[in-house]
Amino acid sequence: MNDLQIANSVAPRPIQEIAYRLNVPPDTLELYGKYKAKLPIELIDEEKVQKGNLILVTAITPTPAGEGKTTVTIGLNDGLNRLGKASVAVIREPSLGPVFGMKGGAAGGGWSQVIPMEDINLHFTGDFHAIEKANNLLSALIDNNIQSKTRNLGIDPRTVLWKRSMDMNDRALRNVVVGLGGKTGGIPRETGFNITAASEVMAILCMSKSLEDLKERFSKIFIGDRFDGTPVFASDLKAEGAMATLMKEAIKPNLVQTLGHNPAILHGGPFANIAQGTNSIIATKMGLSLGDFVVTEAGFGSDLGAEKFFNIKCRQAGLSPKAVVVVATIRALKYHGGKPLKELTSEDVFALENGFPNLQRHLDSVRSFGIPVVVAVNVFNSDTEAEKKRILDYCREIGVPAALSEGWAKGGEGCEGLGQLVVEAAESCTNRFSPTYALEDTVQEKIKKVAQTIYGASDVVLSQTAQSQLKKIEKLGLSQIPICIAKTQKSLSDNEKLIGRPQEFTITIREFEIAAGAGFLIPIAGEILRMPGLPETPSAESVDIDEKGVISGLF
Amino acid sequence: MNDLQIANSVAPRPIQEIAYRLNVPPDTLELYGKYKAKLPIELIDEEKVQKGNLILVTAITPTPAGEGKTTVTIGLNDGLNRLGKASVAVIREPSLGPVFGMKGGAAGGGWSQVIPMEDINLHFTGDFHAIEKANNLLSALIDNNIQSKTRNLGIDPRTVLWKRSMDMNDRALRNVVVGLGGKTGGIPRETGFNITAASEVMAILCMSKSLEDLKERFSKIFIGDRFDGTPVFASDLKAEGAMATLMKEAIKPNLVQTLGHNPAILHGGPFANIAQGTNSIIATKMGLSLGDFVVTEAGFGSDLGAEKFFNIKCRQAGLSPKAVVVVATIRALKYHGGKPLKELTSEDVFALENGFPNLQRHLDSVRSFGIPVVVAVNVFNSDTEAEKKRILDYCREIGVPAALSEGWAKGGEGCEGLGQLVVEAAESCTNRFSPTYALEDTVQEKIKKVAQTIYGASDVVLSQTAQSQLKKIEKLGLSQIPICIAKTQKSLSDNEKLIGRPQEFTITIREFEIAAGAGFLIPIAGEILRMPGLPETPSAESVDIDEKGVISGLF
Repeated sequence: MNDLQIANSVAPRPIQEIAYRLNVPPDTLELYGKYKAKLPIELIDEEKVQKGNLILVTAITPTPAGEGKTTVTIGLNDGLNRLGKASVAVIREPSLGPVFGMKGGAAGGGWSQVIPMEDINLHFTGDFHAIEKANNLLSALIDNNIQSKTRNLGIDPRTVLWKRSMDMNDRALRNVVVGLGGKTGGIPRETGFNITAASEVMAILCMSKSLEDLKERFSKIFIGDRFDGTPVFASDLKAEGAMATLMKEAIKPNLVQTLGHNPAILHGGPFANIAQGTNSIIATKMGLSLGDFVVTEAGFGSDLGAEKFFNIKCRQAGLSPKAVVVVATIRALKYHGGKPLKELTSEDVFALENGFPNLQRHLDSVRSFGIPVVVAVNVFNSDTEAEKKRILDYCREIGVPAALSEGWAKGGEGCEGLGQLVVEAAESCTNRFSPTYALEDTVQEKIKKVAQTIYGASDVVLSQTAQSQLKKIEKLGLSQIPICIAKTQKSLSDNEKLIGRPQEFTITIREFEIAAGAGFLIPIAGEILRMPGLPETPSAESVDIDEKGVISGLF
Repeated sequence: MNDLQIANSVAPRPIQEIAYRLNVPPDTLELYGKYKAKLPIELIDEEKVQKGNLILVTAITPTPAGEGKTTVTIGLNDGLNRLGKASVAVIREPSLGPVFGMKGGAAGGGWSQVIPMEDINLHFTGDFHAIEKANNLLSALIDNNIQSKTRNLGIDPRTVLWKRSMDMNDRALRNVVVGLGGKTGGIPRETGFNITAASEVMAILCMSKSLEDLKERFSKIFIGDRFDGTPVFASDLKAEGAMATLMKEAIKPNLVQTLGHNPAILHGGPFANIAQGTNSIIATKMGLSLGDFVVTEAGFGSDLGAEKFFNIKCRQAGLSPKAVVVVATIRALKYHGGKPLKELTSEDVFALENGFPNLQRHLDSVRSFGIPVVVAVNVFNSDTEAEKKRILDYCREIGVPAALSEGWAKGGEGCEGLGQLVVEAAESCTNRFSPTYALEDTVQEKIKKVAQTIYGASDVVLSQTAQSQLKKIEKLGLSQIPICIAKTQKSLSDNEKLIGRPQEFTITIREFEIAAGAGFLIPIAGEILRMPGLPETPSAESVDIDEKGVISGLF
């Protein structure tokens, strides 16, 4: 059975039943069909938030297929519930782009999925659409003002950094010229589209603590400059009220269930290579308010999602995890050990051992935050007994608790051992986490600390462009906010070809983006695309629906 | 009180209660919150469809403010329910474009509105978003194929007619160049965006009778030519399955309620000047399956919405209305009688009488379909007794039943008289409607018949471009489908300055668009924009939401 068939083989329980177990009265739910509901923000209880056990799931450097972080998150959540813990999985919503591109769905896999899988991978409750509309309303207001005769703010079209967004892998929209067609068509200018998951509106949603905060952040969005060099913000266009109105429902987290009928909250979905890579602060707090454990994930390896999870999200929201799970796969370790991608399914203990330094580096990074660590070995059918034994032995040697995670094949039952280790780790944790840098550090210091402590780099170089942008950032008074480095997920370095554990490398910051509303700066290391393209054979070609509404090809 | 305040002053009943009155079991509903639900297509009962009383609401040539057709439709529906008839209003969903532009919401007005007004005017149940995504997925597949090395179909980028869509008034997107930025950014080409309401996907949704039919129509979408001159369709890109999958929920009609707590079905929203201007066939059939009366509307004056309603929708769906209501306002008649826009609120019986020929022309047009007609005088506060008396007297003189429609001020109670006339008209109707042209007529004959019978034009002229496109249309085998003329709504002619009842004018067809999936040709008369712009002061600036989620400025 493929993922879609497995998902459809389990009859979901009415979402009211799942909510009831979390002590959420049915009347406070806003239903979207029978199996999805929005939770009102008023259910957040700050006292419970502080007491709860927040568990972060991160990973080693992934192969292109991903290491199954979401699968482990969902399986672990079901495992914890089987152990009698009131646990809630809190994860990101999938983007439509990959669904019709290469990767397929993003709601877990095998027997560790959230359902209704089809809805979640299609429009779900419309959050991405709302984000896109809020984003693009601001764009329309900008171009309308540039064209305006009576109310022109003097925006210099060449300086406008704000782009439109679309939740689609569409490379042709990456760089466009708009406003063509003569006088009635606007003022021509170069611009582009970001995929919605990479938009600042998405980042803002995930950083906001309330509707008021959301609106305030919208008002602070930096658009570009006037011809006289002064900055223009979204508030200058009176955009924030209408943008927040469009987000009225999108700000509320979504409740669904796992295949084990345990609660899962999905909310927000910024990518981790080009944005902060973790679900909304509101959703995480909601999970902690309703359960005793929250299992959450942050995208790609710990150098991307986890670093941002701690230094941006936890710091801003006043959260502190009780344990971190690092997901490793035997496949990926062999890949980092030098085995070619196509041969990863054949046994190779030597290559596996050669991959250990990558795991070691991620463990070191995560330990730098001062929180207990557990390794989850996400099991694939092709893994051999000898390989499984070797990785578990290695973890014992270096003194890290480790367990096989068999959520894909067995659901929650396959994650009970992992769950037990996580509970023990959480119980042992008495610290709050320590961040990698202080907000008062200069921007360059911040980048350097992340590059050295987390990536294992020797130094950081800023391009000429980046250096002059830094002056602009200082002028705007934005030096004392966190950084959200955009970097390839394929390597600990900024060069995707350096797999394993790269040594003696420097990180080059090509340029900065300013996400003043989200409240962070985006130093861009290397070439990172904020609008993906479709592959030669898009998966859209095999997605189909029959006359009865039965979908195929979506997995 | 403004419209939003009135809408919020009435507590909506749970939508299950509204459904129950239509004999729809609560379990078959797909809830979207407490007051919106999707209805499964299986509830359509073709036998009931044929027996039901379908009432079309159309209008005279409107002023820029509109004549309140939706307000009359909703008021009349409430009036009919007060008279003991099981009546359902079936109308279009509003577009976000006008909401943030000039016009504001489009869910009726005063005490004749559908609620929840805010949701309906914002994202509602996501149908427009789904349409946009299906549209833009096809665009991404087209540009991906143009860029493809191994699977290139040889599409000539200069011939691609398919545009992207966005539900936003954004003139800067009307004409764009995409695919810039070098080799990885695609092949540069000129294209543009239509507003979603003007997209062919919207037209297709509204013409489809099932999910299967929808997919079949998607496959037939004409995209452009190969370099060898042969046509390319969406099926060549294997797009139809994924597009239909994206429309899985959007194809289901939406149930809400009027302020009088009577059922209203909202589904689809093509504009009437540039598309077919009426809700989906599925929604109309759903209404007739669940009620004895359906009150529906078609956009702008009878020259646009009503003509297309009969010749395209009713013919295709096998529907035949029992009565047509022509909405006139004293304001608009005075405007057509030569009174300036700013002076319409002062009494002027002379100008009113001068405007009668416009009403007369619309009545003649509607009568050409062979269905009984009723005039609804949609009352405004500024109308005087003398004016009201004069218009009713005039209708009596020319032998048309007429009533004041006071739905704005009084809700259903203000439409009981109108309702009575409508019931009598429907009871008197024994005919099926006669179309303006036969499908076997040549394209030019079809245009000529509509121009002469409906617009009162003397002749039709085709530009050189249109003439050569006609040859292409013949080559594609598309001559025997209906036509959907795009024309200004401000005049019976194609020149918006000719108000009243223009005489001795010709209609010029500038060019054709081919909507092969929707199943009609679009002859474009004059300059019609398929992507509107924002005004100097967009209404977005005054839309706001407070920390409790209370919205203002949306009306």
